[in-house]
Amino acid sequence: MDIALVNSLPYDDFVDVFGNVVERCPIIAAAVWSGRPFSSTADLEASIYEFIDALPESGKEGILRVHPDLAGRDLQGGTLTQESREEQGQAGLDTLTAAEVSRMARLNTEYKRHFGFPFVICARMNNKATILQQLEERLGNECTREKMHAIDEVKKICRLRLHALVVQERSNKL
Amino acid sequence: MDIALVNSLPYDDFVDVFGNVVERCPIIAAAVWSGRPFSSTADLEASIYEFIDALPESGKEGILRVHPDLAGRDLQGGTLTQESREEQGQAGLDTLTAAEVSRMARLNTEYKRHFGFPFVICARMNNKATILQQLEERLGNECTREKMHAIDEVKKICRLRLHALVVQERSNKL
Repeated sequence: MDIALVNSLPYDDFVDVFGNVVERCPIIAAAVWSGRPFSSTADLEASIYEFIDALPESGKEGILRVHPDLAGRDLQGGTLTQESREEQGQAGLDTLTAAEVSRMARLNTEYKRHFGFPFVICARMNNKATILQQLEERLGNECTREKMHAIDEVKKICRLRLHALVVQERSNKL
Repeated sequence: MDIALVNSLPYDDFVDVFGNVVERCPIIAAAVWSGRPFSSTADLEASIYEFIDALPESGKEGILRVHPDLAGRDLQGGTLTQESREEQGQAGLDTLTAAEVSRMARLNTEYKRHFGFPFVICARMNNKATILQQLEERLGNECTREKMHAIDEVKKICRLRLHALVVQERSNKL
Protein backbone atom coordinates (compact mmCIF):
# COMPACT_ATOMS: atom_id res chain seq x y z
CA MET A 1 0.00 0.00 0.00
CA ASP A 2 1.39 3.42 -0.90
CA ILE A 3 0.40 6.79 0.52
CA ALA A 4 -1.91 7.59 -2.40
CA LEU A 5 -3.91 4.46 -1.68
CA VAL A 6 -3.88 5.27 2.06
CA ASN A 7 -5.36 8.69 1.27
CA SER A 8 -8.11 7.14 -0.83
CA LEU A 9 -9.41 4.86 1.93
CA PRO A 10 -12.82 5.55 3.45
CA TYR A 11 -12.62 5.81 7.24
CA ASP A 12 -13.82 2.28 7.93
CA ASP A 13 -11.18 0.70 5.70
CA PHE A 14 -8.57 3.08 7.15
CA VAL A 15 -9.47 1.94 10.68
CA ASP A 16 -9.42 -1.71 9.59
CA VAL A 17 -5.86 -1.25 8.31
CA PHE A 18 -4.36 1.16 10.87
CA GLY A 19 -6.61 0.62 13.90
CA ASN A 20 -3.93 -1.20 15.88
CA VAL A 21 -0.79 0.80 15.06
CA VAL A 22 -1.30 2.03 18.60
CA GLU A 23 -2.25 -1.09 20.54
CA ARG A 24 -6.00 -1.39 21.21
CA CYS A 25 -6.53 2.31 20.37
CA PRO A 26 -8.46 2.32 17.05
CA ILE A 27 -9.84 5.72 18.08
CA ILE A 28 -6.41 7.20 17.25
CA ALA A 29 -6.35 5.99 13.63
CA ALA A 30 -10.04 6.93 13.38
CA ALA A 31 -9.24 10.44 14.63
CA VAL A 32 -6.24 11.19 12.42
CA TRP A 33 -8.25 10.17 9.32
CA SER A 34 -9.77 13.66 9.70
CA GLY A 35 -6.38 15.12 8.76
CA ARG A 36 -5.95 13.33 5.41
CA PRO A 37 -4.54 13.63 2.80
CA PHE A 38 -1.13 12.74 4.21
CA SER A 39 1.88 13.81 2.15
CA SER A 40 3.90 10.75 3.23
CA THR A 41 4.07 7.96 5.79
CA ALA A 42 6.09 10.32 7.95
CA ASP A 43 3.22 12.81 7.79
CA LEU A 44 0.69 10.16 8.88
CA GLU A 45 3.07 9.11 11.65
CA ALA A 46 3.47 12.71 12.79
CA SER A 47 -0.33 13.11 12.92
CA ILE A 48 -0.58 10.11 15.22
CA TYR A 49 2.14 11.42 17.54
CA GLU A 50 0.54 14.85 17.57
CA PHE A 51 -2.77 13.30 18.63
CA ILE A 52 -1.09 11.32 21.40
CA ASP A 53 0.91 14.31 22.66
CA ALA A 54 -2.22 16.48 22.82
CA LEU A 55 -4.04 14.04 25.10
CA PRO A 56 -4.31 14.92 28.78
CA GLU A 57 -1.99 12.97 31.08
CA SER A 58 -4.82 10.56 31.92
CA GLY A 59 -5.25 9.83 28.22
CA LYS A 60 -1.56 8.99 27.82
CA GLU A 61 -1.86 6.73 30.88
CA GLY A 62 -4.95 5.21 29.22
CA ILE A 63 -2.92 4.30 26.13
CA LEU A 64 -0.36 2.54 28.31
CA ARG A 65 -3.03 0.73 30.36
CA VAL A 66 -4.60 -0.97 27.34
CA HIS A 67 -1.23 -2.53 26.46
CA PRO A 68 -0.78 -6.17 27.46
CA ASP A 69 1.79 -7.34 29.99
CA LEU A 70 4.93 -8.72 28.38
CA ALA A 71 4.92 -12.52 28.67
CA GLY A 72 1.70 -12.12 30.66
CA ARG A 73 -1.81 -13.59 30.74
CA ASP A 74 -2.64 -12.55 27.16
CA LEU A 75 0.41 -14.29 25.72
CA GLN A 76 -0.29 -17.37 27.82
CA GLY A 77 -4.03 -17.29 27.12
CA GLY A 78 -3.75 -16.64 23.39
CA THR A 79 -5.63 -13.32 23.60
CA LEU A 80 -2.88 -10.99 22.39
CA THR A 81 -3.53 -8.90 19.30
CA GLN A 82 -1.80 -10.34 16.24
CA GLU A 83 0.77 -7.54 16.24
CA SER A 84 1.69 -8.04 19.91
CA ARG A 85 1.89 -11.80 19.48
CA GLU A 86 4.38 -11.44 16.63
CA GLU A 87 6.42 -8.81 18.46
CA GLN A 88 6.59 -10.70 21.76
CA GLY A 89 7.39 -13.89 19.83
CA GLN A 90 10.19 -12.27 17.87
CA ALA A 91 11.75 -11.06 21.12
CA GLY A 92 11.67 -14.63 22.43
CA LEU A 93 9.04 -13.96 25.10
CA ASP A 94 7.02 -17.03 24.06
CA THR A 95 9.94 -19.36 24.83
CA LEU A 96 10.97 -18.17 28.30
CA THR A 97 12.08 -20.72 30.88
CA ALA A 98 9.85 -21.19 33.91
CA ALA A 99 12.34 -19.16 35.94
CA GLU A 100 12.27 -16.32 33.40
CA VAL A 101 8.44 -16.31 33.31
CA SER A 102 8.40 -16.11 37.07
CA ARG A 103 10.95 -13.26 37.16
CA MET A 104 9.08 -11.35 34.45
CA ALA A 105 5.77 -11.77 36.29
CA ARG A 106 7.26 -10.55 39.57
CA LEU A 107 8.84 -7.50 37.94
CA ASN A 108 5.71 -6.71 35.91
CA THR A 109 3.59 -6.82 39.06
CA GLU A 110 6.00 -4.58 40.91
CA TYR A 111 6.14 -2.13 37.99
CA LYS A 112 2.33 -1.96 37.64
CA ARG A 113 1.81 -1.45 41.36
CA HIS A 114 4.40 1.31 41.39
CA PHE A 115 3.39 3.25 38.25
CA GLY A 116 -0.28 2.31 37.68
CA PHE A 117 0.36 1.20 34.09
CA PRO A 118 2.15 -1.76 32.52
CA PHE A 119 5.75 -1.89 31.35
CA VAL A 120 5.76 -0.99 27.64
CA ILE A 121 8.80 -1.50 25.45
CA CYS A 122 9.32 -1.90 21.71
CA ALA A 123 9.90 -5.67 21.72
CA ARG A 124 11.12 -5.72 18.10
CA MET A 125 14.07 -3.54 19.08
CA ASN A 126 14.94 -5.77 22.04
CA ASN A 127 15.33 -9.38 23.16
CA LYS A 128 14.40 -11.12 26.39
CA ALA A 129 17.70 -10.20 28.05
CA THR A 130 17.48 -6.47 27.26
CA ILE A 131 13.75 -6.45 28.09
CA LEU A 132 14.36 -7.89 31.56
CA GLN A 133 17.28 -5.51 32.08
CA GLN A 134 15.20 -2.48 31.01
CA LEU A 135 12.29 -3.56 33.20
CA GLU A 136 14.56 -3.66 36.24
CA GLU A 137 16.24 -0.37 35.40
CA ARG A 138 13.08 1.57 34.56
CA LEU A 139 11.45 0.46 37.81
CA GLY A 140 13.80 2.96 39.46
CA ASN A 141 12.67 5.91 37.34
CA GLU A 142 10.67 8.85 38.63
CA CYS A 143 7.01 8.45 37.61
CA THR A 144 6.61 11.39 35.17
CA ARG A 145 9.88 10.55 33.45
CA GLU A 146 8.92 6.89 33.19
CA LYS A 147 5.55 7.76 31.66
CA MET A 148 7.31 9.83 29.00
CA HIS A 149 9.70 6.98 28.36
CA ALA A 150 6.81 4.52 28.00
CA ILE A 151 4.98 6.81 25.54
CA ASP A 152 8.20 7.04 23.51
CA GLU A 153 8.17 3.25 23.34
CA VAL A 154 4.52 3.35 22.16
CA LYS A 155 5.68 5.61 19.33
CA LYS A 156 8.54 3.27 18.37
CA ILE A 157 6.07 0.36 18.24
CA CYS A 158 3.68 2.49 16.21
CA ARG A 159 6.40 3.47 13.73
CA LEU A 160 7.37 -0.15 13.05
CA ARG A 161 3.73 -1.26 12.71
CA LEU A 162 3.01 1.65 10.37
CA HIS A 163 6.02 1.04 8.20
CA ALA A 164 5.07 -2.62 7.88
CA LEU A 165 1.76 -1.47 6.36
CA VAL A 166 2.78 1.37 4.07
CA VAL A 167 5.38 1.04 1.35
CA GLN A 168 8.12 3.57 1.86
CA GLU A 169 8.30 6.33 -0.68
CA ARG A 170 11.50 6.67 -2.65
CA SER A 171 12.92 10.12 -2.49
CA ASN A 172 12.58 11.98 -5.78
CA LYS A 173 15.46 14.21 -4.85
CA LEU A 174 18.92 13.53 -6.19
CA MET B 1 -20.81 -4.42 41.76
CA ASP B 2 -21.07 -1.30 43.91
CA ILE B 3 -18.95 1.84 43.71
CA ALA B 4 -16.70 0.76 46.60
CA LEU B 5 -15.78 -2.38 44.67
CA VAL B 6 -15.31 -0.32 41.48
CA ASN B 7 -12.86 1.92 43.34
CA SER B 8 -10.90 -1.09 44.58
CA LEU B 9 -10.24 -2.49 41.09
CA PRO B 10 -6.70 -2.45 39.73
CA TYR B 11 -6.57 -0.79 36.31
CA ASP B 12 -6.53 -4.02 34.31
CA ASP B 13 -9.67 -5.35 36.00
CA PHE B 14 -11.30 -1.92 35.66
CA VAL B 15 -10.59 -1.93 31.90
CA ASP B 16 -11.88 -5.51 31.62
CA VAL B 17 -15.18 -4.41 33.19
CA PHE B 18 -15.66 -0.89 31.77
CA GLY B 19 -13.52 -1.03 28.62
CA ASN B 20 -16.51 -1.03 26.27
CA VAL B 21 -18.89 1.43 27.96
CA VAL B 22 -17.79 3.62 25.06
CA GLU B 23 -17.79 1.29 22.08
CA ARG B 24 -14.29 0.05 21.12
CA CYS B 25 -12.64 2.81 23.19
CA PRO B 26 -11.03 1.01 26.17
CA ILE B 27 -8.57 3.92 26.33
CA ILE B 28 -11.37 6.01 27.86
CA ALA B 29 -12.03 3.68 30.80
CA ALA B 30 -8.27 3.23 31.15
CA ALA B 31 -7.82 7.00 31.30
CA VAL B 32 -10.55 7.82 33.82
CA TRP B 33 -9.16 5.18 36.21
CA SER B 34 -6.57 7.88 37.02
CA GLY B 35 -9.38 9.90 38.63
CA ARG B 36 -10.56 7.27 41.12
CA PRO B 37 -11.96 7.06 43.74
CA PHE B 38 -15.38 7.87 42.33
CA SER B 39 -17.99 9.03 44.81
CA SER B 40 -20.83 7.41 42.84
CA THR B 41 -21.74 5.94 39.48
CA ALA B 42 -22.74 9.44 38.43
CA ASP B 43 -19.24 10.63 39.30
CA LEU B 44 -17.65 7.89 37.18
CA GLU B 45 -20.06 8.73 34.36
CA ALA B 46 -19.19 12.43 34.62
CA SER B 47 -15.48 11.60 34.41
CA ILE B 48 -16.06 9.71 31.17
CA TYR B 49 -18.06 12.57 29.65
CA GLU B 50 -15.44 15.08 30.75
CA PHE B 51 -12.75 13.04 29.01
CA ILE B 52 -14.82 12.84 25.81
CA ASP B 53 -15.65 16.56 25.86
CA ALA B 54 -11.98 17.50 26.29
CA LEU B 55 -10.92 15.60 23.16
CA PRO B 56 -10.15 17.60 20.04
CA GLU B 57 -12.83 17.46 17.33
CA SER B 58 -10.89 14.75 15.51
CA GLY B 59 -10.94 12.64 18.68
CA LYS B 60 -14.73 12.94 18.96
CA GLU B 61 -14.98 11.97 15.29
CA GLY B 62 -12.66 9.06 16.10
CA ILE B 63 -15.06 7.81 18.77
CA LEU B 64 -17.91 7.87 16.26
CA ARG B 65 -15.86 6.16 13.54
CA VAL B 66 -15.11 3.09 15.65
CA HIS B 67 -18.85 2.50 16.12
CA PRO B 68 -20.38 -0.20 13.92
CA ASP B 69 -23.03 0.52 11.31
CA LEU B 70 -26.54 -0.25 12.50
CA ALA B 71 -27.74 -3.48 10.86
CA GLY B 72 -24.44 -3.46 8.95
CA ARG B 73 -21.60 -5.82 8.13
CA ASP B 74 -20.68 -6.48 11.78
CA LEU B 75 -24.22 -7.54 12.68
CA GLN B 76 -24.42 -9.70 9.58
CA GLY B 77 -20.91 -11.10 10.02
CA GLY B 78 -21.19 -11.77 13.75
CA THR B 79 -18.34 -9.41 14.63
CA LEU B 80 -20.26 -6.91 16.76
CA THR B 81 -19.16 -6.41 20.36
CA GLN B 82 -21.46 -8.21 22.80
CA GLU B 83 -22.97 -4.92 23.95
CA SER B 84 -23.77 -3.75 20.42
CA ARG B 85 -25.21 -7.14 19.48
CA GLU B 86 -27.61 -7.05 22.42
CA GLU B 87 -28.58 -3.43 21.78
CA GLN B 88 -29.14 -3.84 18.05
CA GLY B 89 -31.05 -7.07 18.73
CA GLN B 90 -33.28 -5.44 21.34
CA ALA B 91 -34.16 -2.71 18.85
CA GLY B 92 -35.18 -5.39 16.33
CA LEU B 93 -32.31 -4.69 13.92
CA ASP B 94 -31.47 -8.40 13.65
CA THR B 95 -34.92 -9.22 12.27
CA LEU B 96 -35.30 -6.61 9.54
CA THR B 97 -37.01 -7.56 6.30
CA ALA B 98 -34.86 -7.58 3.16
CA ALA B 99 -36.43 -4.27 2.16
CA GLU B 100 -35.60 -2.73 5.55
CA VAL B 101 -32.01 -4.00 5.40
CA SER B 102 -31.68 -2.48 1.96
CA ARG B 103 -33.14 0.86 3.06
CA MET B 104 -30.94 0.96 6.15
CA ALA B 105 -27.82 0.19 4.09
CA ARG B 106 -28.65 2.90 1.56
CA LEU B 107 -29.24 5.51 4.27
CA ASN B 108 -26.14 4.46 6.25
CA THR B 109 -23.99 4.80 3.15
CA GLU B 110 -25.44 8.21 2.37
CA TYR B 111 -24.95 9.35 5.99
CA LYS B 112 -21.33 8.15 6.13
CA ARG B 113 -20.45 9.76 2.81
CA HIS B 114 -21.99 13.03 3.96
CA PHE B 115 -20.60 13.26 7.51
CA GLY B 116 -17.47 11.06 7.48
CA PHE B 117 -18.66 9.00 10.46
CA PRO B 118 -21.42 6.43 10.97
CA PHE B 119 -24.93 7.06 12.24
CA VAL B 120 -24.87 6.51 16.01
CA ILE B 121 -28.06 6.26 18.05
CA CYS B 122 -28.89 4.74 21.43
CA ALA B 123 -30.64 1.62 20.09
CA ARG B 124 -32.06 0.67 23.52
CA MET B 125 -34.07 3.88 23.57
CA ASN B 126 -35.43 3.26 20.08
CA ASN B 127 -36.88 0.65 17.76
CA LYS B 128 -36.38 -0.02 14.09
CA ALA B 129 -39.09 2.44 13.07
CA THR B 130 -37.73 5.36 15.12
CA ILE B 131 -34.15 4.48 14.12
CA LEU B 132 -34.96 4.66 10.42
CA GLN B 133 -36.93 7.86 10.97
CA GLN B 134 -34.05 9.46 12.93
CA LEU B 135 -31.53 8.37 10.32
CA GLU B 136 -33.50 10.11 7.58
CA GLU B 137 -34.08 13.23 9.67
CA ARG B 138 -30.53 13.58 10.95
CA LEU B 139 -29.15 13.27 7.42
CA GLY B 140 -30.45 16.81 6.94
CA ASN B 141 -28.55 18.27 9.91
CA GLU B 142 -25.64 20.67 9.61
CA CYS B 143 -22.37 18.76 10.18
CA THR B 144 -21.20 20.34 13.49
CA ARG B 145 -24.65 20.02 15.01
CA GLU B 146 -24.96 16.41 13.87
CA LYS B 147 -21.59 15.54 15.40
CA MET B 148 -22.74 16.98 18.74
CA HIS B 149 -25.98 15.01 18.45
CA ALA B 150 -24.06 11.80 17.72
CA ILE B 151 -21.75 12.33 20.71
CA ASP B 152 -24.83 12.84 22.90
CA GLU B 153 -26.04 9.44 21.69
CA VAL B 154 -22.64 7.92 22.58
CA LYS B 155 -23.18 9.27 26.10
CA LYS B 156 -26.68 7.78 26.33
CA ILE B 157 -25.31 4.40 25.26
CA CYS B 158 -22.48 4.78 27.78
CA ARG B 159 -24.90 5.63 30.60
CA LEU B 160 -27.02 2.52 30.01
CA ARG B 161 -23.97 0.24 29.70
CA LEU B 162 -22.49 1.72 32.86
CA HIS B 163 -25.67 1.39 34.86
CA ALA B 164 -25.98 -2.25 33.78
CA LEU B 165 -22.58 -2.85 35.40
CA VAL B 166 -22.76 -0.86 38.62
CA VAL B 167 -25.49 -1.26 41.20
CA GLN B 168 -27.20 2.03 41.80
CA GLU B 169 -26.61 3.58 45.20
CA ARG B 170 -29.60 4.21 47.40
CA SER B 171 -29.71 7.75 48.59
CA ASN B 172 -28.92 8.06 52.28
CA LYS B 173 -30.81 11.32 52.43
CA LEU B 174 -34.37 11.45 53.65
